[in-house]
Amino acid sequence: MHLLPTSSPPSLVRLLVSALISPSSSLLRPLQPPISLLSRRPLTASTLPMPDGDDSLLRKALADKLATIQAQANAVRQLKASGAPKSDIDAAVQSLNALKLDKASLETQFLQSATNNRDAFRQALVNTLERRLFYMPSFKIYRGVAGLYDYGPPGCAVKSNVLAFWRQHFVLEENMLEVDCPCVTPEIVLKASGHVEKFTDLMVKDEKTGTCYRADHLLKDYCKDKLEKDLTITAEKAAELKHVLALLDDLSAEKLGAKIKEYGITAPDTKNHLSDPYPFNLMFQTSIGPSGLSPGYMRPETAQGIFVNFKDLYYYNGNKLPFAAAQIGQAFRNEISPRQGLLRVREFTLAEIEHFVDPQDKSHPKFSEIASLEFLMFPREGQMSGQSAERLQIGEAVARGIVNNETLGYFIGRVYLFLTRLGIDKERLRFRQHLANEMAHYAADCWDAEIECSYGWIECVGIADRSAYDLCAHSDKSGVALVAQEKYSEPREVEKLVIAPVKKELGLAFKGNQKMVTEALEVMDEKVALQMKADLESKGEVEFYICSLGKNVTVKKNMVSISKEKKKEHQRVFTPSVIEPSFGIGRIIYCLFEHAFYTRPSKAGDEQLNVFRFPPLVAPIKCTVFPLVQNQQYEEVAKFISKSLTAAGISHKIDITGTSIGKRYARTDELGVPFAVTVDSTSSVTIRERDSKDQIRVNVENVAAVVKEVTDGQSTWDDILKAYPLHSSGSVDEE
Amino acid sequence: MHLLPTSSPPSLVRLLVSALISPSSSLLRPLQPPISLLSRRPLTASTLPMPDGDDSLLRKALADKLATIQAQANAVRQLKASGAPKSDIDAAVQSLNALKLDKASLETQFLQSATNNRDAFRQALVNTLERRLFYMPSFKIYRGVAGLYDYGPPGCAVKSNVLAFWRQHFVLEENMLEVDCPCVTPEIVLKASGHVEKFTDLMVKDEKTGTCYRADHLLKDYCKDKLEKDLTITAEKAAELKHVLALLDDLSAEKLGAKIKEYGITAPDTKNHLSDPYPFNLMFQTSIGPSGLSPGYMRPETAQGIFVNFKDLYYYNGNKLPFAAAQIGQAFRNEISPRQGLLRVREFTLAEIEHFVDPQDKSHPKFSEIASLEFLMFPREGQMSGQSAERLQIGEAVARGIVNNETLGYFIGRVYLFLTRLGIDKERLRFRQHLANEMAHYAADCWDAEIECSYGWIECVGIADRSAYDLCAHSDKSGVALVAQEKYSEPREVEKLVIAPVKKELGLAFKGNQKMVTEALEVMDEKVALQMKADLESKGEVEFYICSLGKNVTVKKNMVSISKEKKKEHQRVFTPSVIEPSFGIGRIIYCLFEHAFYTRPSKAGDEQLNVFRFPPLVAPIKCTVFPLVQNQQYEEVAKFISKSLTAAGISHKIDITGTSIGKRYARTDELGVPFAVTVDSTSSVTIRERDSKDQIRVNVENVAAVVKEVTDGQSTWDDILKAYPLHSSGSVDEE
Repeated sequence: MHLLPTSSPPSLVRLLVSALISPSSSLLRPLQPPISLLSRRPLTASTLPMPDGDDSLLRKALADKLATIQAQANAVRQLKASGAPKSDIDAAVQSLNALKLDKASLETQFLQSATNNRDAFRQALVNTLERRLFYMPSFKIYRGVAGLYDYGPPGCAVKSNVLAFWRQHFVLEENMLEVDCPCVTPEIVLKASGHVEKFTDLMVKDEKTGTCYRADHLLKDYCKDKLEKDLTITAEKAAELKHVLALLDDLSAEKLGAKIKEYGITAPDTKNHLSDPYPFNLMFQTSIGPSGLSPGYMRPETAQGIFVNFKDLYYYNGNKLPFAAAQIGQAFRNEISPRQGLLRVREFTLAEIEHFVDPQDKSHPKFSEIASLEFLMFPREGQMSGQSAERLQIGEAVARGIVNNETLGYFIGRVYLFLTRLGIDKERLRFRQHLANEMAHYAADCWDAEIECSYGWIECVGIADRSAYDLCAHSDKSGVALVAQEKYSEPREVEKLVIAPVKKELGLAFKGNQKMVTEALEVMDEKVALQMKADLESKGEVEFYICSLGKNVTVKKNMVSISKEKKKEHQRVFTPSVIEPSFGIGRIIYCLFEHAFYTRPSKAGDEQLNVFRFPPLVAPIKCTVFPLVQNQQYEEVAKFISKSLTAAGISHKIDITGTSIGKRYARTDELGVPFAVTVDSTSSVTIRERDSKDQIRVNVENVAAVVKEVTDGQSTWDDILKAYPLHSSGSVDEE
Repeated sequence: MHLLPTSSPPSLVRLLVSALISPSSSLLRPLQPPISLLSRRPLTASTLPMPDGDDSLLRKALADKLATIQAQANAVRQLKASGAPKSDIDAAVQSLNALKLDKASLETQFLQSATNNRDAFRQALVNTLERRLFYMPSFKIYRGVAGLYDYGPPGCAVKSNVLAFWRQHFVLEENMLEVDCPCVTPEIVLKASGHVEKFTDLMVKDEKTGTCYRADHLLKDYCKDKLEKDLTITAEKAAELKHVLALLDDLSAEKLGAKIKEYGITAPDTKNHLSDPYPFNLMFQTSIGPSGLSPGYMRPETAQGIFVNFKDLYYYNGNKLPFAAAQIGQAFRNEISPRQGLLRVREFTLAEIEHFVDPQDKSHPKFSEIASLEFLMFPREGQMSGQSAERLQIGEAVARGIVNNETLGYFIGRVYLFLTRLGIDKERLRFRQHLANEMAHYAADCWDAEIECSYGWIECVGIADRSAYDLCAHSDKSGVALVAQEKYSEPREVEKLVIAPVKKELGLAFKGNQKMVTEALEVMDEKVALQMKADLESKGEVEFYICSLGKNVTVKKNMVSISKEKKKEHQRVFTPSVIEPSFGIGRIIYCLFEHAFYTRPSKAGDEQLNVFRFPPLVAPIKCTVFPLVQNQQYEEVAKFISKSLTAAGISHKIDITGTSIGKRYARTDELGVPFAVTVDSTSSVTIRERDSKDQIRVNVENVAAVVKEVTDGQSTWDDILKAYPLHSSGSVDEE
């Protein structure tokens, strides 16, 4: 469960650190051409400058250049005043002009660098995604609704594949109990979870038009804009703005409002004054049944459906811990002003796991299977001390106490495997530990799987040890005990403190105050009670402060008996801890799109072609089938291959259009289809791999088996190449 | 799209017909034992009497018996009055008493028969389903919310399997374009579709407490109760009540209210008076964004998401018809008072297909593949003339024009294959054609796949030819043309009417009214225009009525030129028809549960054991693994087998509890697990099939391959038996 809207703005430390780990300043790279040209040049996101990148070197170079120009201008003035020879003056002026040119070039670079580059990449990607219907704004013919997107055919297939693999990797391999609960949720459940009270963002309104904005977004935009585009601000001002950005997360409504006033921020569209910030609950509200008396909400997460079923699931698991329950489903957040495409939407698919475990034993039986995995981790201490994310073995991270426990570590390792097998670039994936101020007070530890994309490092999976919080909250509110028992194999003897006030004596001594004194005696903690026992035995009486009376009373030996008794216990009853890996499926898919997308020149070199390098596991279509030329024989063969692919359960597409084979390859590459079968004879055909463009020749009867082998992951393309030698492309050459 | 809430009450004809096709009266069967005993007797739904069954024979027998008793009582009285011998009188009285006993027995039978039997079966089933967490009421610890259910682990697995098979059977095999659209939908979309105005049920309120009821349900309950439990009503009254039941669907608010008043129906809980019926919109309403100015609804179906994307999808398909788009997702209906468990819920999963086709060509290229399928169909004519559903070949049904077109027929066939492969009993599945009054005015034809369960015949899939209605509605409202083009291979010559008003002359003649006259001339239909042309040519002028002026004007020959011209057209632009198969996944799953459930005696014969005969395709878990006794060697083997099953992607469960093997078999049968592997040696193990209880012996290394072969559907159990001879159970016998 996240009460904080996800992907909250970065804290001060995070910002500083992300600046430090960015590739060094864009000063070191040549000037980028304008956007319109970029679309004709190869693009990959991994070579792009990072967002929130460090602009200080560029800023310093500009300041230095200005100082030099100032000095040179003074020099020219002095030369003129001193009546120096014209040739000297001309040389100095020439030098001054050269310096001014340098400055202009630096300014252009400053304005164009990071932001534009990222924007160009993203625009090329999003254009391709929308044109090929990976996703598109919902209800487009009615001009759409912000924050709602449809997945079209290839996007929908990618999503199905991601979810199917999630089920295989987590539910099946870990024997989890999958459940499926409704989205419509009655208010009482979300009151218990804290969402009704706390699931809010701060909002401001245009005082004239009533248009709403997220208060922190306006302040963030103002600061970023100033930092990126205003060359006149001083270093001190820049530092202040960065400080505000870093604190954005923690600002109260009052402080946010004060900053907005101080900076004179107005409504972006109208420049009207803005209201003071006030909280807006992010849940979609509705009413259950016809009476209007049962408020409900569209769930903001799937986790609550699991918590309220804990008792049944524990029983289903034979009353044994640990076990994990899982759920995939829609969740809803009525964002104030959604942006960032698929990353911040009003409806999205979550996949959540709640792993219930004895708080006294968070070891994991399969931990050794992932202990030697090594990947980028970003522990709390590293963030606080300004270090970069470091490559760590997860086994070592748990052994050194960096990760709180084995179960948490096990899930971090499994999440790493899940994401990288999908095709997430492991160099652009890190596990960042929450800082103390980011975590809820009850959480034991929390790590986010963050994936780097053109929007920065995006939280895509949260892995939190939430201790007993959620089960306790629902136990309290529902009155149903959500607990586990550990039965002892033999009864255990435990020593228990017994405090027995002697009511008769207390009544005689304290009359109307007897009840308060009795209660105060009964709730003494062990230390106080044992001290009182010792004092009564040695002195016969003792002064005792009664909170409810606000004064001391004198307790005598005959008024209370205090003893320690041995008791036999047969079981321990406790509230399990819960470790929760929570996956934002849409965010993972968007990052996957970014990591998979690249362009390469066409054979004629006259245009850049788009490619998605999806692994077969997630590719929307596994295979396309092309008859080389339009003739009936080849089409028959194509149909035969199509039937055998269907029988093997392989999604594929036939393209019998008359366009050139090169164009057809380009079309299929742009959908990320890993294999293309070209029918150029009736006995054997070629199979082409998307990224290498390697082709092999395979008998018609074997096509489905070969494609199945390599898309199911039983063989790699390299394995296949050993069995089927490379085909030197002749007639089936790409154009 | 369904504007009618699904599974609407049966019409008169449907009722009469369903009575006719029910197995004949329960008079022919022995008396059923009371419910409490039934749970110890074998149960299968297929032997149960039908709901809405024909009680007329029983009713007549009772009336006959009453008449005989009357006669016999008269005879006794006469014997007594006439001073007949005591032995005669005694004999007559004895005979009378015997008749009275018979009558009591008939009454019991009448009250207990159909309803109770069905209830007992359903109760046994639902108890099992809820105890094993196939599904359970949502938010149970908070006392739940009517109409909301969770799927627990086995139910969730069944649902996943059903959806995965749906994707394989429809999306993959038919190359459909799957999309995934949000549940939150802006008002304008649902205004265009008609849901905002028409998606309502009639509701009445308890005038004192405000509790809401569905008006038609109260009337239905009243009539059914009278018919089932009140023995005093006359045949005429019974006929009237049946007539009301049949008309329930078509009653207006006024007529429903009148009937409720006439019968003195009051609130069931309080007996308070009820309000007049008024419409209640069944959509969950919410508000999109923070302004409160953008009303939205949770979608009542997934279809609209496809319609609004038609233009993009048509382009994606290369601007070619026909093509089908598909969507699986949640839908929402804020039912007034949900009941019937999973059959009428407030949130449910729909799987919908929209097949777009040229209205002039509804043939289907793959029709021949399903044309020879034969199954129960219930055409409109059969329903109207009181016949039963009949076994028809779908090819013949299309050829004879019973089914409107090939595409509709193709989908009926594919739905039949889908449902029966899931495990729906083909004897309890029928395709019922909508009667004329059930269909929307725009629909060309509509068939429901109805599955029989203890609630009666339930509509689980609707297959409708909705013509161009939906695309036209969204074209009109959005202003975006949702059309297709047929490009002619050669331009075609068409004759077109050309009306050219001569504005100058019209202006001179009509001054300020010129515009109205011009417009009226321009929109004349062909017939009127040709008549005017003829009249102007013969008479030189003509009287012409102008609606917007409300009067005749005189049009002269020089004021308008009317001619027919030949034009060349290169393409035809038209709105495609849509054929919509729409699947209620929860209903299908519930019926599947009923058809799969049976009980059989334990070996000792002391109890009835529950079994679900799920085919491997839908079984929640494919295989359980039991070490015969608790020892480390066997557990190692079990773990080895478990790993090989995981690697093969087969969901399974290990049961290492110390309970008897018989109990463990019973547990796994009750989850519908088709295969159980018992480890009774370290080299080979037994595999037991659930329904036959056959066992074979297989080497440890081959277990996963054998289970995969038979669960993937590559082999049947019978095939397996040929390769692995039956194992005569020794140590692994069931208890």
